Amino acid sequence: MTTPATRSRENTRVRLLDAAAQLFAEVGLDGASVEAVCDRAGFTRGAFYSNFDSKDELFLMLAGSVAEQRINAVRRRVDEIAADGGLSEGCDPVELVQQIMDSAEEDRLDVMLMSEIRIRALRDAQFGAAYLAQEREMVSSIATIISDIVSVSSLELKVPAYDAARMLMLIWEGMTVRGAMAGQDSDKLRHSGSEELGRLVQLLLAE
Amino acid sequence: MTTPATRSRENTRVRLLDAAAQLFAEVGLDGASVEAVCDRAGFTRGAFYSNFDSKDELFLMLAGSVAEQRINAVRRRVDEIAADGGLSEGCDPVELVQQIMDSAEEDRLDVMLMSEIRIRALRDAQFGAAYLAQEREMVSSIATIISDIVSVSSLELKVPAYDAARMLMLIWEGMTVRGAMAGQDSDKLRHSGSEELGRLVQLLLAE
Repeated sequence: MTTPATRSRENTRVRLLDAAAQLFAEVGLDGASVEAVCDRAGFTRGAFYSNFDSKDELFLMLAGSVAEQRINAVRRRVDEIAADGGLSEGCDPVELVQQIMDSAEEDRLDVMLMSEIRIRALRDAQFGAAYLAQEREMVSSIATIISDIVSVSSLELKVPAYDAARMLMLIWEGMTVRGAMAGQDSDKLRHSGSEELGRLVQLLLAE
Repeated sequence: MTTPATRSRENTRVRLLDAAAQLFAEVGLDGASVEAVCDRAGFTRGAFYSNFDSKDELFLMLAGSVAEQRINAVRRRVDEIAADGGLSEGCDPVELVQQIMDSAEEDRLDVMLMSEIRIRALRDAQFGAAYLAQEREMVSSIATIISDIVSVSSLELKVPAYDAARMLMLIWEGMTVRGAMAGQDSDKLRHSGSEELGRLVQLLLAE
């Protein structure tokens, strides 16, 4: 049941996350202090700490919510393609990857955010464990999408869907990081990523 | 021709790189100032700047020299295995990957160093270009090793060696980063990495 109290709490969290996203874009992770996030969102530090344990936790939630939006966009695109009959027998898996990943909306800021979060996860064991737990959920969501595609198409995977999802995530991450380093814009970034994903998908599929 | 002057210059660079490696291990990349590196190596800032343009350039060279050592270790191991007849027809490619990557000597500090360098390469376009140029050379070295293995074994790649090398590098990087986040020691780190590499190698090889 959603009570007014939980709605208000959820609203506070959403506003803090929005403020965190704005500040990250403006001054980066190091520059975005808890104080600055509170000022921007119009909350006290008390309100902050009743919602998040630390700045790291706030930014991990932000990264999680960005990842969720990207995965939801991918899922919607897959559903659209399925409704249009694009997952029928004989569909070209590489073209399919391009069509799907066009919807991912990943940009340079997302790449920066995830990279900054990973550095923190490397530096702090407890935060590392929290990052890995969140990532496992993300890989599971990707694995579910893959399983759904496989079940309605004539495609067949050579490895379990979870393993495929993890490999695809790592390749996507690696390629978009390189794209961002090379100064690619959002479109090019996704293109580099999905080209390499297409290559891997071809390898992952049984002929 | 190696003159005394170039030997001395080379010696200065090596000592600065050693000092950088020590300080990185002790205080991390942010904590390792040019001043601290010079103090540790026993050189003036003048000597530093006649060898490196910036702290970033020093650490990129350090990352490059670490990567080179790891790749050289891999190459020596491949040569040993080849001399022992381990690349003959019917060799198990997954077991081969384990044997080879056991020699990689990659540890938590290497993973941290490469990750910190990548963050800097993301933040600064010029440094990003320098990082990517160095990485392309590394991928070429890996591709050469892969081509050599393929040419003496009965194994056959489904993609060009350079593409295979890039995918293997990205998967290795992604897995060792996760291993380091999970607090894995050097052995476990390499194990997680080479398990995933083995999976990818199986996909990369024609049956």
